[in-house]
Formats: sequence, C-alpha cells, structure tokens
Amino acid sequence: MRKLFAEFFGTYWLVFGGCGSALFAAGIPNLGIGFAGVALAFGLTVLTMAYAVGHISGGHFNPAVSFGLWAGGRFPAKDLVPYILAQCLGAVAAAGTLFVILSGKTGFTIDNTKAGAFASNGYGAFSPDGYSMTSAFVAEFVLTMFFLLIIIGATDKLANGKFAGLAIGLALTLIHLVSIPITNTSVNPARSTSQALFTQGEPLSQLWLFWVAPIAGALVAGFVYRILLDKKDDL
Amino acid sequence: MRKLFAEFFGTYWLVFGGCGSALFAAGIPNLGIGFAGVALAFGLTVLTMAYAVGHISGGHFNPAVSFGLWAGGRFPAKDLVPYILAQCLGAVAAAGTLFVILSGKTGFTIDNTKAGAFASNGYGAFSPDGYSMTSAFVAEFVLTMFFLLIIIGATDKLANGKFAGLAIGLALTLIHLVSIPITNTSVNPARSTSQALFTQGEPLSQLWLFWVAPIAGALVAGFVYRILLDKKDDL
Amino acid sequence: MRKLFAEFFGTYWLVFGGCGSALFAAGIPNLGIGFAGVALAFGLTVLTMAYAVGHISGGHFNPAVSFGLWAGGRFPAKDLVPYILAQCLGAVAAAGTLFVILSGKTGFTIDNTKAGAFASNGYGAFSPDGYSMTSAFVAEFVLTMFFLLIIIGATDKLANGKFAGLAIGLALTLIHLVSIPITNTSVNPARSTSQALFTQGEPLSQLWLFWVAPIAGALVAGFVYRILLDKKDDL
Amino acid sequence: MRKLFAEFFGTYWLVFGGCGSALFAAGIPNLGIGFAGVALAFGLTVLTMAYAVGHISGGHFNPAVSFGLWAGGRFPAKDLVPYILAQCLGAVAAAGTLFVILSGKTGFTIDNTKAGAFASNGYGAFSPDGYSMTSAFVAEFVLTMFFLLIIIGATDKLANGKFAGLAIGLALTLIHLVSIPITNTSVNPARSTSQALFTQGEPLSQLWLFWVAPIAGALVAGFVYRILLDKKDDL
Repeated sequence: MRKLFAEFFGTYWLVFGGCGSALFAAGIPNLGIGFAGVALAFGLTVLTMAYAVGHISGGHFNPAVSFGLWAGGRFPAKDLVPYILAQCLGAVAAAGTLFVILSGKTGFTIDNTKAGAFASNGYGAFSPDGYSMTSAFVAEFVLTMFFLLIIIGATDKLANGKFAGLAIGLALTLIHLVSIPITNTSVNPARSTSQALFTQGEPLSQLWLFWVAPIAGALVAGFVYRILLDKKDDL
Repeated sequence: MRKLFAEFFGTYWLVFGGCGSALFAAGIPNLGIGFAGVALAFGLTVLTMAYAVGHISGGHFNPAVSFGLWAGGRFPAKDLVPYILAQCLGAVAAAGTLFVILSGKTGFTIDNTKAGAFASNGYGAFSPDGYSMTSAFVAEFVLTMFFLLIIIGATDKLANGKFAGLAIGLALTLIHLVSIPITNTSVNPARSTSQALFTQGEPLSQLWLFWVAPIAGALVAGFVYRILLDKKDDL
Repeated sequence: MRKLFAEFFGTYWLVFGGCGSALFAAGIPNLGIGFAGVALAFGLTVLTMAYAVGHISGGHFNPAVSFGLWAGGRFPAKDLVPYILAQCLGAVAAAGTLFVILSGKTGFTIDNTKAGAFASNGYGAFSPDGYSMTSAFVAEFVLTMFFLLIIIGATDKLANGKFAGLAIGLALTLIHLVSIPITNTSVNPARSTSQALFTQGEPLSQLWLFWVAPIAGALVAGFVYRILLDKKDDL
Repeated sequence: MRKLFAEFFGTYWLVFGGCGSALFAAGIPNLGIGFAGVALAFGLTVLTMAYAVGHISGGHFNPAVSFGLWAGGRFPAKDLVPYILAQCLGAVAAAGTLFVILSGKTGFTIDNTKAGAFASNGYGAFSPDGYSMTSAFVAEFVLTMFFLLIIIGATDKLANGKFAGLAIGLALTLIHLVSIPITNTSVNPARSTSQALFTQGEPLSQLWLFWVAPIAGALVAGFVYRILLDKKDDL
C-alpha cells in the first residue's frame, strides 16, 4: 500500500510540475521558460521523486516504465494493474489541481481546437509543429525505448546505481528537449490520459497513440536489454 | 550557535542569490536569464549551501522547512524559534545588501504598485500573471507540501541520502519553474518577509499568505509522510 | 559483442538526442530551446548512456574518445576498429530515424547550401556564424583535447570516479555552449559523418576536418595526461 | 610540478570555456545562449576540471580561491605564488587562443570603449548594466566570500565531500546568474587579468578592483568559517 501511495504522489508531482510549468510559465512574453524550461521541469519531477520515494516503490510514475521493467524481468506482472491505477489516479488529481489554479486567472478557458491545449499530447493538426501520425508514433516509440534502456541499464546491479535517479530524471529532460514540437512529448500514458480527460475533443480521440507507442517501445527495450546487453543472456 | 550561523548564512545566500538574480539579471533585453534562470538560481542557492553547511545545521534556510521537519518527527520543537529567527535575520541582511547594490544604479527606485517589485511575492493584482488569492494559496500550499515530501523522503535513513542536497535544491528550481507567474514563488516565509519589508505597501499586506500557505503545506507533508509513506507507521 | 551493441545504442542516442533537439526544437519561434538547449541535450545523451551502458563498453560513443583513450593507455588498439564501426553505424541509424520523422512534416527538405543543414558541421561559408577553416580547426582541436583530458582525468584510479559520467556528459554540454556558432560543434567524427552523409554537398566535402581535428586533439590529450599529469610518469 | 600543470590546464579551461561561450555564443540573434548559458558554461568549466584534476592540485583555478583556502587553513602559504602564476599563465594562454579563433571571423575587432569588450570585467561606464564602483565592489566581495564559504564547507572532513566538485561548479554558475549585469562577473583575478590584457584601455585601468574585492571576500570567508562555523573553533 505504501508503494501505491508513492506512485500516486510521484505521478501527481510529474503532472503537476511538468504540465504545470508548461501551462503557467512557458509562454510568458520575454521572461517565459520556453520548451527548455518545461523539459527541465519534467525531468526534475522524476529526479526529485526518485530520490524521495524511489526507495519505497522503485519510482516508476509511468505505466510504460512499469511495462518495460516487467519486460526486462525487474517487476512482477501481478503489480502492473495496481501500479498503473495509482499512476493514473495521481495524474488525474494533479490535472484537477492545475485546473483549479488556472480557473483563478481571468479569461481562462481550454480551447481544445488548438494543439497542446491544457498541455495535451497530439499528432497531425494537434502536433505543436505539424508532424504526422507516423512521425509521432516513431518518435514516441524510439524515445520511450531509450528511456527504458537507460532505466534498466542504470539500475543494473553492475552499474553505478546511486546515480540512477539523476540519469533517469535527466533522460526525461532530454526526451522533452527533442520532442515537444512533435507530440508535446508523452512517453507516459498516465500523463497523456489526465490531460486528455480535461481537454476532451480531438486530443482525447488521439489518446490511443500515447498508450500504444510508449508501451511498445518500453516492451522492446526490456527484451533488447535482456538479449543484447545483459551479462546473463538468459531470456 | 554554529547551527544558527549556518542558517543565517544559508538563508542570506538563498535571498541574495535567488532574489538577486531576479532583480539584476532576469529582465535584461535579449540576454537576460528570464524566469528559468531565476528558477535555477534559487535551486542552486540551496544545493550549494546544503553541501556547504548542511552537515552543521541540517540546511533548512526556510521556516516552512523547519516546521515540516518538526511535523515529520525529524526536528525538535525547541529549536523552531531560534532557527526561524536566524533565517529571517539572514534574509533581511541579504535584502539590505541587494538594496545597497541596486542603489548604485542610476534611476533605481522600488515601485511598490507593481507586481513583483523588489522580488516581492503577491496575489491578485500583485500576482505577476494575474492569479487570484485562492489560486495563489493552492499553489503555495501544494508546492511546499511536495517540497517537504521530497526533503523528508530524500533524507530518510532508507534513501540514497548523499543525493539529498541535489534533489532538494533542484526541487526548489522545479517549484520556481512552475510558479513564478502565479505568486513570484515563495514557499519560504523568510524570503517573502525580507522582500516585503523593503517593498512595503500592498506586498507587505499580503505577506500573511506566504506564512500561512507554505507552513500549512509543510505540516501536512510531515504528517502525510509519517502516515502514508514511512516504513514505521507509528505516528 | 555486448560492448559493440552498447556503443551502437549509445552513439545512436547521442545523434538522435543531440542532432534531433537541434532539428526539431532549436528554432521554434519564442519557445524554442536555442543553442543552450541543444548543448544541454548533447551532454545529457552522454550522461544518461554513461550511467546506462558505461559499465558494459566504457561508454565512448565517439571515435575521437576511443583514440584518445588508446593514447592515454586506457584502451587496447585492437578494439579501435570494431568500436569505431559500431559508433558510425549507430550514428547513421539515428540520422536515418531523424530523416523519417522529419519527412512527416509538410514542406521538409534538406537545403545543403545553408550552414548547419540537417545538423551538419562546417566551416567558412558553412560555419553557422562565419568562422574560417583555421578557426574551426583550432576550436575542434582544443575542445576535443580538453574533452579527453576530462575523460581521462575523471576516470583515473585516484579520481572520484563515480562522478565521471556526470563530468563527462556536462563537459560535452559546455563544449556545445562554446562552439555551436563556430562549427555547429562536432568533437565527434561519427556524429559529423552521419549528418554529412544525409546532407551531401559541401558539408560532405568538409567532413575531413571533423575527423582530423578531433582525433588530433584527442591523441595530444592522451599523451599530455600521461606526461604532465599522471602520477606514474612512465610513458 | 604536476599540480602546477593541473592549475594551468584548469584555469585555461575556465577562461576558454567561460569567456569563450560569452564571446562566441551569447549574443547570436534568437538562438544565442544569453547570460544564463554563459553562467552555465563558467560553472561547468570548474565542475568538469574539479573531477578531472581536482585529485592532483585541489582544483583552485583562481587566485582568490587559493588565498581563501590559505585563510581557511587548508592551503600552505608557500604554494600561493606558484599556484597563482600557473593560474595567470593558463588564463592568458586561453585568452590568446580565443583571440586567434575570433580573428578568423570577418570584421572582428575588440572595441574597448564598450562594457564587456572581449569578455572583460568593469564597473561604472564599463558595467554591462551601469552599476557604480561601490556596487561592483560589494557584489564581487559578497559573491567571492560565499563562493569560498561553499568551497571550504563542501570540502570539510565532516561534509559529503564527493559532491564538492558539483556544488562548487554550480556555485560559480549561480554567481554568474546573479552578477553578469553588474561587473560581467569576475570573482577570479586571473580571469579578469587575461581579458584586460587583451582589451587594454579602461578595462585594464579597472583591473585593480577585480584583484582586491575577490581576494578580500575570500580572506574574510576563510576567517569566518574558522571562527563561526568550524567544529574546532581554534583559530
């Protein structure tokens, strides 16, 4: 139960900090933090919570991470559903808090005909810089695959494991530096779900891609690491 | 006594570095560091002083942190008042130094009818991007609550404690990435007090919120950690 | 064989993350990550992969690094060719993936008459800010030399080796902060080769410099460290 | 002798990387790294070299640091002169290399009637944002004092010493985030000297302040740490 609370709070923080920085601070004229600031914020949510509650739950905060760690032989199948539920609940609670805070600003509305509304993910007309569905799928697949390679590698018994939280958090920053213009960056189905639920419309219709592509990339990473990189090549 | 000097110097550095970067460097045309640079500066004040004097005083530099650590069972009640006094004195001394340096620039005045004057915190008409008092309260409460969850979690005996200074400092950077547009970011009553004292006017009248909301969030975090996350669930 | 897969994936990530951030995100109006974001991205590719697969292959991801470590007495000559092949294959595979993703954006073409097309490196008319061939050579030589001094020094038995991945990754960030305007920053012949192959034209004709200057700097660093800095001055 | 080579290369890197990022990359329209990028670059020069050669020479790279460590009882007086000579030679060699690279750009000249020419430090009319000599002195004094408090504290036997390189490097980033607009940031007499020698004119006449203020601040820090913060209060 402590593990599920840790996943709940960790995913809450990921969505509140990452999407919050995008919604409140990215586009302020002249002084705004831009995509680079949002990328840093997403990474720091994971870095900080990895050191805060990683010793409790392992610090996934992301259904794709839980799937990838299962494929890599590091996480039991029976914990997948409760972890993913806790993650999605945390994400939705954070999105709700963001909504409450934004409601206190004059003239606030969610215009779900525009790309990136309420920090939602999208492709085609809902890609921030106009990338196709195929481009979006490839980007989310490749980025989540490498995210999991880094997670599985950095937590390998033979690795310098105390730095895993640093490497994994900054990997998420790097992923956002690359791909915010493509899909507004997901690599995390829970984060996409919470924002799509509040945005509705087309972003909700496109939500499937942000479950399928990240989880597919994560599963491939788990198998790739075991087959090509792990010392004991016993699949 | 060494502990109080450490808290004095640490909080001085937090206000001098964090508010100083905002006052001197944020808004320079084209080359200015913007909100992201200020966010980085605040976080680095805590990161650097945590490794410099954390072994002396624990490295709070913030009355809300002292309250939260007390609620979390990590700090004795009898040290609350001296710590908070040392923190406030350090903050005021830093604000005075900032004032002296700014006085050496032609045309310097503090215009306390504008949001964020002398790096002060505020809500409503004194919120940098026009957020209501309720939004400001929710943001300061939630952000300080998670700041303390990170502090208490990262310094848990079972955690990877050598990285606590890194995680805690970068948590403060993340908090600023999210919330400078909302309240100019406090989560620290000492930092709000020093800037309000020099600014006077409405920012001083609004100071109550930047004591109440951060300390309330910090207290909740202390109890939440003990009840929901700590291994020994003995409150 | 595991080592070569590690070098393949590591160099793929370096090119995909570093060049990808430049191609997708650097120049977005108002919100783009700029040269500083690209510099951070390149550094984080190495930082993250160093902690993920550094325990497998040593984490070179760069032919100049392999040469420099050989000159420093840390890497056997017989592994040079297979490592460099794996690195170049990984770089080309990443450039191909970037090409696929960019193809899904309306109006995408590679205009190889402009400096920095498809994140290629160049000098003279192909230097982003108009630096001569000599300036480009000096910059690439000096920066790679110091990159290798940092790599060899930070992995010295007497050094604080667990931080090597952090120091080396952030060294690459620093190198890009300095030199993107000069050559679009190489210090890595594999990264230059993959981008030149897709760009063709003048960037491909200039590719020689981005093999010669980085490798020359790396070799000098290896010898300098052994002669001037190493405790056992036995060359 | 190995120690002096380490100080030479370290200070070369500090000036080449820090001043180089300012000269080449800060002001590029739209994509430039700005003051925040320069601040990051200066900090990363020290962070990277601290982990690379800190185990050889202690990693000062700065005459004020050598003086401050002497005042703090951590560095023998007899090494002050050779260390400072090695530092100044490294700084001048780096400034010369920067000059060579810049000479390869059409239309390059050093206009020493403007603040910050060739990355020089200055006050009054030569302060980037118009701060007086007194403001400049106070800023350089306070910032170097805290820089040394962090250095001495983070390398205390009782501190978490493996993180000292990280904390000290990022302290220099923080210092630049605060004070580039005030003096173009020195806190390092060697860095000021090399740039003033190439700039000549008024920046050379103002060089005295960038020896006196940083060294005074460093000396005060050494004594403050020993008297107020050190466990053994034996001066």
